[in-house]
Amino acid sequence: MDHHTSDLGFARVDIGRQARQGLPEIVYGPGKQDAEIAAIVTTLIARNTGPVLVTRVEAATAAAVHAAVPGGRYDEAARLLTWREADDIGFRVAVVTAGTSDGPVAAEAAAVATALGMRVTEIRDVGVAGIHRLLAETDRLRDADTVIVIAGMEGALASVVGGLVEAPVVAVPTSVGYGAALEGVTALLAMLTSCAAGLTVVNIDSGFGAALAAYRLTRVSA
Amino acid sequence: MDHHTSDLGFARVDIGRQARQGLPEIVYGPGKQDAEIAAIVTTLIARNTGPVLVTRVEAATAAAVHAAVPGGRYDEAARLLTWREADDIGFRVAVVTAGTSDGPVAAEAAAVATALGMRVTEIRDVGVAGIHRLLAETDRLRDADTVIVIAGMEGALASVVGGLVEAPVVAVPTSVGYGAALEGVTALLAMLTSCAAGLTVVNIDSGFGAALAAYRLTRVSA
Amino acid sequence: MDHHTSDLGFARVDIGRQARQGLPEIVYGPGKQDAEIAAIVTTLIARNTGPVLVTRVEAATAAAVHAAVPGGRYDEAARLLTWREADDIGFRVAVVTAGTSDGPVAAEAAAVATALGMRVTEIRDVGVAGIHRLLAETDRLRDADTVIVIAGMEGALASVVGGLVEAPVVAVPTSVGYGAALEGVTALLAMLTSCAAGLTVVNIDSGFGAALAAYRLTRVSA
Amino acid sequence: MDHHTSDLGFARVDIGRQARQGLPEIVYGPGKQDAEIAAIVTTLIARNTGPVLVTRVEAATAAAVHAAVPGGRYDEAARLLTWREADDIGFRVAVVTAGTSDGPVAAEAAAVATALGMRVTEIRDVGVAGIHRLLAETDRLRDADTVIVIAGMEGALASVVGGLVEAPVVAVPTSVGYGAALEGVTALLAMLTSCAAGLTVVNIDSGFGAALAAYRLTRVSA
Amino acid sequence: MDHHTSDLGFARVDIGRQARQGLPEIVYGPGKQDAEIAAIVTTLIARNTGPVLVTRVEAATAAAVHAAVPGGRYDEAARLLTWREADDIGFRVAVVTAGTSDGPVAAEAAAVATALGMRVTEIRDVGVAGIHRLLAETDRLRDADTVIVIAGMEGALASVVGGLVEAPVVAVPTSVGYGAALEGVTALLAMLTSCAAGLTVVNIDSGFGAALAAYRLTRVSA
Amino acid sequence: MDHHTSDLGFARVDIGRQARQGLPEIVYGPGKQDAEIAAIVTTLIARNTGPVLVTRVEAATAAAVHAAVPGGRYDEAARLLTWREADDIGFRVAVVTAGTSDGPVAAEAAAVATALGMRVTEIRDVGVAGIHRLLAETDRLRDADTVIVIAGMEGALASVVGGLVEAPVVAVPTSVGYGAALEGVTALLAMLTSCAAGLTVVNIDSGFGAALAAYRLTRVSA
Amino acid sequence: MDHHTSDLGFARVDIGRQARQGLPEIVYGPGKQDAEIAAIVTTLIARNTGPVLVTRVEAATAAAVHAAVPGGRYDEAARLLTWREADDIGFRVAVVTAGTSDGPVAAEAAAVATALGMRVTEIRDVGVAGIHRLLAETDRLRDADTVIVIAGMEGALASVVGGLVEAPVVAVPTSVGYGAALEGVTALLAMLTSCAAGLTVVNIDSGFGAALAAYRLTRVSA
Amino acid sequence: MDHHTSDLGFARVDIGRQARQGLPEIVYGPGKQDAEIAAIVTTLIARNTGPVLVTRVEAATAAAVHAAVPGGRYDEAARLLTWREADDIGFRVAVVTAGTSDGPVAAEAAAVATALGMRVTEIRDVGVAGIHRLLAETDRLRDADTVIVIAGMEGALASVVGGLVEAPVVAVPTSVGYGAALEGVTALLAMLTSCAAGLTVVNIDSGFGAALAAYRLTRVSA
Repeated sequence: MDHHTSDLGFARVDIGRQARQGLPEIVYGPGKQDAEIAAIVTTLIARNTGPVLVTRVEAATAAAVHAAVPGGRYDEAARLLTWREADDIGFRVAVVTAGTSDGPVAAEAAAVATALGMRVTEIRDVGVAGIHRLLAETDRLRDADTVIVIAGMEGALASVVGGLVEAPVVAVPTSVGYGAALEGVTALLAMLTSCAAGLTVVNIDSGFGAALAAYRLTRVSA
Repeated sequence: MDHHTSDLGFARVDIGRQARQGLPEIVYGPGKQDAEIAAIVTTLIARNTGPVLVTRVEAATAAAVHAAVPGGRYDEAARLLTWREADDIGFRVAVVTAGTSDGPVAAEAAAVATALGMRVTEIRDVGVAGIHRLLAETDRLRDADTVIVIAGMEGALASVVGGLVEAPVVAVPTSVGYGAALEGVTALLAMLTSCAAGLTVVNIDSGFGAALAAYRLTRVSA
Repeated sequence: MDHHTSDLGFARVDIGRQARQGLPEIVYGPGKQDAEIAAIVTTLIARNTGPVLVTRVEAATAAAVHAAVPGGRYDEAARLLTWREADDIGFRVAVVTAGTSDGPVAAEAAAVATALGMRVTEIRDVGVAGIHRLLAETDRLRDADTVIVIAGMEGALASVVGGLVEAPVVAVPTSVGYGAALEGVTALLAMLTSCAAGLTVVNIDSGFGAALAAYRLTRVSA
Repeated sequence: MDHHTSDLGFARVDIGRQARQGLPEIVYGPGKQDAEIAAIVTTLIARNTGPVLVTRVEAATAAAVHAAVPGGRYDEAARLLTWREADDIGFRVAVVTAGTSDGPVAAEAAAVATALGMRVTEIRDVGVAGIHRLLAETDRLRDADTVIVIAGMEGALASVVGGLVEAPVVAVPTSVGYGAALEGVTALLAMLTSCAAGLTVVNIDSGFGAALAAYRLTRVSA
Repeated sequence: MDHHTSDLGFARVDIGRQARQGLPEIVYGPGKQDAEIAAIVTTLIARNTGPVLVTRVEAATAAAVHAAVPGGRYDEAARLLTWREADDIGFRVAVVTAGTSDGPVAAEAAAVATALGMRVTEIRDVGVAGIHRLLAETDRLRDADTVIVIAGMEGALASVVGGLVEAPVVAVPTSVGYGAALEGVTALLAMLTSCAAGLTVVNIDSGFGAALAAYRLTRVSA
Repeated sequence: MDHHTSDLGFARVDIGRQARQGLPEIVYGPGKQDAEIAAIVTTLIARNTGPVLVTRVEAATAAAVHAAVPGGRYDEAARLLTWREADDIGFRVAVVTAGTSDGPVAAEAAAVATALGMRVTEIRDVGVAGIHRLLAETDRLRDADTVIVIAGMEGALASVVGGLVEAPVVAVPTSVGYGAALEGVTALLAMLTSCAAGLTVVNIDSGFGAALAAYRLTRVSA
Repeated sequence: MDHHTSDLGFARVDIGRQARQGLPEIVYGPGKQDAEIAAIVTTLIARNTGPVLVTRVEAATAAAVHAAVPGGRYDEAARLLTWREADDIGFRVAVVTAGTSDGPVAAEAAAVATALGMRVTEIRDVGVAGIHRLLAETDRLRDADTVIVIAGMEGALASVVGGLVEAPVVAVPTSVGYGAALEGVTALLAMLTSCAAGLTVVNIDSGFGAALAAYRLTRVSA
Repeated sequence: MDHHTSDLGFARVDIGRQARQGLPEIVYGPGKQDAEIAAIVTTLIARNTGPVLVTRVEAATAAAVHAAVPGGRYDEAARLLTWREADDIGFRVAVVTAGTSDGPVAAEAAAVATALGMRVTEIRDVGVAGIHRLLAETDRLRDADTVIVIAGMEGALASVVGGLVEAPVVAVPTSVGYGAALEGVTALLAMLTSCAAGLTVVNIDSGFGAALAAYRLTRVSA
């Protein structure tokens, strides 16, 4: 076992990630027991200096982990546990949603981005069926260093935003919708074939993935 | 064999369709020999009084059929053969496309609609990556009795148009695009899950289907 | 924020939709809290004059919203909440189902259409395995200004109805069936490839979508 | 190597099939060289007494095999080569198609059935968009001992026929259609989920498979 | 409403089916209320003379319907309710399963076949991983007038049985298996592409469908 | 019934498998009642001499079967019941996982392999996002006679391991992940198209299948 | 028509895109005639000041357009036509491929990026089956401001690179591979579910899309 | 660049693979120019001592490469180019096919295995529709150290063979078949869900992959 890894038996914590990528490993909560999460978090806090995050955590688990590892914060809407959130680095991220049902994914994206030091603006419920709602927000969209567009159903919002701004656009398909929405696959495919050039796409419902993609952008000018 | 049908041996022509649906049977060209098309057309002309159309016909077939059945017209872009086109019935159809590659599907929709007596306005190349191109056409869109929206890739144009007009909107996904466009399946799924309420959808690349759907609309107020 | 939009924080209500499309925004219930629905409904009632509808609402939510916003009506079979239903506009819609299991989708289509002022005739349980059941209803089908055909499994009813009437036909695939029915995808694909010309299709189980498509038709002759 | 098999090196001919199943092995032509087909046919003629068939054979191959193995017959529409066709066994098969494009599949079904001694009635071009065409043939359908229904697109014809007759119905989906027809998959799924009870289905475009299924039926009363 | 149909309001009972197809309409239980099933059954008993069946009925519903319509029988393993089961017509059906998990589908096939007068032999748990288990049953397989083969996972049993017998073989894919079994779709596709000629296939888990297909076979020699 | 089979009525136990394949039949638990499992196990113990295993058994069933058939052992993490585990045969299997969520599948693979006499090394949580974790284990990987690689999401671990070792590599895709992971289908497809030559793949989540594949390898040098 | 658009009849050129997004509209070549491309390019050159690009152009078309619009350059490997390429802006992009077959996609990405002023480093043929090839390039990877990873088959390279660098990573799945590679869909799904956090993905074979995504990144620090 | 890699500019040859995996890198021919193949082969011959293979090479390319690199051998049926084939290592591989159309895949598997020193027995055309053909070969199957089973359509042969032998079985699905065979996907899924325990599967049509998997097996006892 090399010194970039801490082997806890049930998990092999990637201690070297902060050196390699500017950020400690982020813990994916599901499938781990409360005590396992607590042990991993303890290791990460001890062996790194940056922010420590656990995603997709339900309230009961959050309480148990808090009890074991003091100093953390829990955002229930985002299902996010954090310790040592980063200071504001001045990088502006707009988190835009098509509808109110996309809210939980947006909450995760916003909370992760905030915890990593980004300055988040949320622009909600601007789906293209009432295009004036989006156009009225053009200036705020253009002020952002990057835009995260979150939409389910046909995901058309990503294409329209992609044509309005020059900043990087990260599209997040959501599983909102029914029938032919195919649990987010339709929005995913639609975003990948967007007529707006230079969009990029992350996995369905992955607010976390979009925030991390934005974090990588902050390293460009770092 | 009933008197609503004319049995040509190789085909059973639905003579009763004009009485039932206001329009003679429309012939689908592919898979039929030139002589078969000519015989079917001859029967339809003799046994009905309305317009007679053959779709998806290549130029060589068109010439052969014209030689056998005089008085027809051929639209090469639309691959459509017609006899006895209908007089203008004053019903206004807007045929809107996202990009130039959607042209052949639009040509079929426009030519079929025209042959059935509709007044067609074409609004081309107004894909949502430059949304101002579409918004500049809002008045012309709102003037139409029905709007046919034709788009490939992610098909987002249908949702935006669907939110701008109150008229019926028939969305036609096209096989334009590559990779995740899945030969039109992505646009099809996207249009079916549009956030704009009350859109309806026809088969991939079916300009013909959209025109016929529009024709049915003309019967509402007939 | 423009005057066509009312920003409630958690939602951005499209106040301008009635002016643009003749109808206030219709609220999709799932994923919204009771208080949020009540606030949106209150806004729509205050800022528009037309009918206000909330779809896919369970009984408990309906009761809570009724308590907050008086004057509404709840149709449990259709899961629909309404205020200020429209007066009869004389437009006749036939809602046709293949089997009794398609009932809930038909209830939604019929209730939405009625709330928007259409005159609805329901023709139930006329699947094509006993074709005489459908043929016996031919006259009622032909009397309608538009026909909504609702079927699961193989969805063949849409093709047969499409060949019997000249009016617009909106086909709604349902998720009725098992195995190769693929939760409605088979019926959806079948309806999109119908041999009956000019059918249009909406999303799986979307009685709402079909009713809105019918509503758009009423605007043609308006 | 047992005596039920003849090993030609490049192929292992199932000599025992006639004893086991009442019929010599039927040869699938594609992927075999002319000389290989000739050798297999020669073996089957020598070691069995029943009809010998080769399916999906193009004209040039047919000529080459005829030159090598005299006494055969070639049906170009059916792409079928036969030797020693069976005498009429009085079993009546109706081969029904939805449209003219389904013709080649019907030709294969009819030719194979005829070569195996069945009495074939063809009922063509009775797709459900003009349901009267089918109903006019009800008596001929009911006269058959079994009905093979061949249809592409949405395949609805199978359901309607399935509800009209009491005989076994074998449904053959075809690859006729485009877009959402998915090269026959839509018709296949639709036929498998038919609302008419007791239909059975074979592979896409498999006129051969349907004829063999019919042949098995002849053994029931044999 | 014609005299072949009895309209109960919530359902349109196909009274004419016995005349058309030798068998009263069979009722699909799911989605119907106990009282509705009872009313339909009462109608079928009154207006037809043949066996009356309701499929996919849970025990509680069975009890409730029994209370309302006396004289019925309930087979819990098959989830089948019957009245007036048919006398033995001497037609021998073998119901063959690959594994014990296919049991419920086999139970439905066997119970429906028995209720319609067929003589059923069950041959269980003869999956091809131990091929001697199947070969030891060859004689019993060959004694049957028709064979219903029920298998999940890769469904290979159908191909092997198809090559052993000359009688009609109806293959029923089941949803047994996990992962790449895709809830029965893999077995379905495999059975449709079987190398054994003349197999036919019904929907996933449809023991009912296979029994009805067998019933149609009994009409051939009737 | 031949002497290689024991017919228990509800199941046909393949007594001959040990002679044919060196190992008694392994019982798949789901869908069988406790008493059925106990009876099958009793038969296998009586009629074979090798290890007897039941997979995918929940704790309550394990207790019930233990009560009926003494001498067994239950591994709850692996959901495995065993009797007469094999002695160590010296064959070294490395079981490698990408993440902690792949644990249950690894537990099944390891427990089955151990029960069949293999010597198992577990190397956990070495997903490729921190490639040094894997490279640090290269020597242990190369020491194994075969490597089982277990990964969900994109399954990339299999390709990297496949390029590091010369031993047989059996890849097991897991259903870990969400959205585009498609419940394991993505990892399955990725492993099948690995750029590392000579990998083989088993079904999603099938730790059992991988262990049995490894067992077959032990027979090569036996 | 607004002043941001130039309507050429067959196309509606988005003149305003440079002002909105820092870059003139980029022309997608397929489906456009040579003269149409020349006219669009002429318009873009006249009405904007930035680089003008046409993608997916075959050599014959390139020659024809060059004849009509002087001053351009053609990169045959990249199938790219350019006028007024941008000066070096100092932004470093690494274009990394898994195998030689990914070359054409890499060529497009590199040529587009270069034409837009980026400084491109190509790192070819470092697929993960020989992981040392990639690790030997770690320093060059870490020097880049962004990394474009291009891979077909299982696309595992993206995950490994994603774990090695902190810069933004844009993954491009390619259609390289056969069978289960599903023409790039497998690589696409795998990249979307990568275990490396913060990867983003573009459409299959879209070297262009990746370069444009990189271009958007250059605007962050602009 | 490390000494395990030889960088030819257009390709990065993995010189270290023989040391790591006992075998030089095997070259995949498609997409490489004749001169590129020749250069890679020259490098592999110079820098390794083992056999050098190029797969999927057409005859014209083979001739051109032979001219540039003397001493090679070309197997046209297998589309394989080899230099320095290995001596017989005594490892017995049975290559079994279901039908004659599976021949080309079998040829590739056999030729690659032979070139790597394995002793190959071919057992052709033993598809399960005539199960006696396979059973007659049981002894030869059981003599093999490993069995490669090659089958298209429903791929059932793999399951039956898997139950007959105790050796490792590598299943290769082929794209033989039409319609529901889905170009090999059906056989692939069927083999992955085989009821025979411990089968492993490689990509569609990958005779090469199966031979390499067999090669890895030879290392177990090496």
